[in-house]
Amino acid sequence: MADVATPPRRSRITPEREAELYEAVLDLLREVGYESLTMDAVAARTRSSKATLYRQWGGKPELVARALRHNKPVCLADIDTGSLRGDLMEMVALQDDCKMEQDHALMRGLFHAIHDNPELHQALRQLLVEPEITGLNALLRRAVERGEIAADNPALEYVVHMLIGGFAARELVEDRAVDQAFLAKYIDAAILPALGV
Amino acid sequence: MADVATPPRRSRITPEREAELYEAVLDLLREVGYESLTMDAVAARTRSSKATLYRQWGGKPELVARALRHNKPVCLADIDTGSLRGDLMEMVALQDDCKMEQDHALMRGLFHAIHDNPELHQALRQLLVEPEITGLNALLRRAVERGEIAADNPALEYVVHMLIGGFAARELVEDRAVDQAFLAKYIDAAILPALGV
Repeated sequence: MADVATPPRRSRITPEREAELYEAVLDLLREVGYESLTMDAVAARTRSSKATLYRQWGGKPELVARALRHNKPVCLADIDTGSLRGDLMEMVALQDDCKMEQDHALMRGLFHAIHDNPELHQALRQLLVEPEITGLNALLRRAVERGEIAADNPALEYVVHMLIGGFAARELVEDRAVDQAFLAKYIDAAILPALGV
Repeated sequence: MADVATPPRRSRITPEREAELYEAVLDLLREVGYESLTMDAVAARTRSSKATLYRQWGGKPELVARALRHNKPVCLADIDTGSLRGDLMEMVALQDDCKMEQDHALMRGLFHAIHDNPELHQALRQLLVEPEITGLNALLRRAVERGEIAADNPALEYVVHMLIGGFAARELVEDRAVDQAFLAKYIDAAILPALGV
């Protein structure tokens, strides 16, 4: 498996063409799911050669992980408003409600697939999960440096678990898709108090 | 769809026979998943007639939901240790680590199936989700009555989201299955502080 943390060689592919290709991969993922998605279908849908796809991305897990990363609307690392609450609310504001539902449908299918596909799991961790955790940790570290949170606050290492709970539980508990208003309330009512903010 | 909140008529089925049948349903679920599970396969595996299965349970969603409920090791409603922390730790202690992993594998498959099967979704909500939320709310209400939590604490309605985050996130974030030690730490570090306890 290629090291997906290294950007692919872009040789003759323009950014527009790359974006078009990622959109096609995500459309196929929504239509048929990860298991049934083939490099043949991606090549046909995007009028590319399979050889190009393999040369640029290495394989299906890497191509899917890159397409998901391209789709992801939020990059926590770029957020820096000057306060922890401001940073977390900015994270929520940057989520587009419609995209969140789409992502949720995608992630549901992938959550199932990663257990039979260690390469997909590794690609998703490297490209989607770890950068967000790194971004979140940077945001929390700045809050500690500003004196908003005590450096030894035990809740610090569980902020990501609490956030994921907000995303995952609403559908299960309330039978409704997560949205910006819910996440903002959840952050104010549960996450900031857990951190003593 | 039959009202799954009402226990099935038990006519001539002994509790031992019922348990044996539920175990067979869960084994089949683990082997083939919800979609591919048929009442024919359940009848064959358990040497029952399909007519009996339908008469007793009404249909596949209800039978699967009852089998899952039977399997569930914890019933929050029965826990009452006299303190909120005691109750939550008792909840953790009653989880058997091995069973948690098995449940996780089962729930992963079902999480996917519920989106195409409204009847399964409704049966799981009625038999698994709602009783646990009711049990958790009773436990929290007692903590409010004892004066451990302010009645208007805004985190009260998000305890279930935080708990689900603990279960769901660990695999994603740390690549490890959830266990009792992790849950106990998470409750002490994040959930109790969010509640001001």
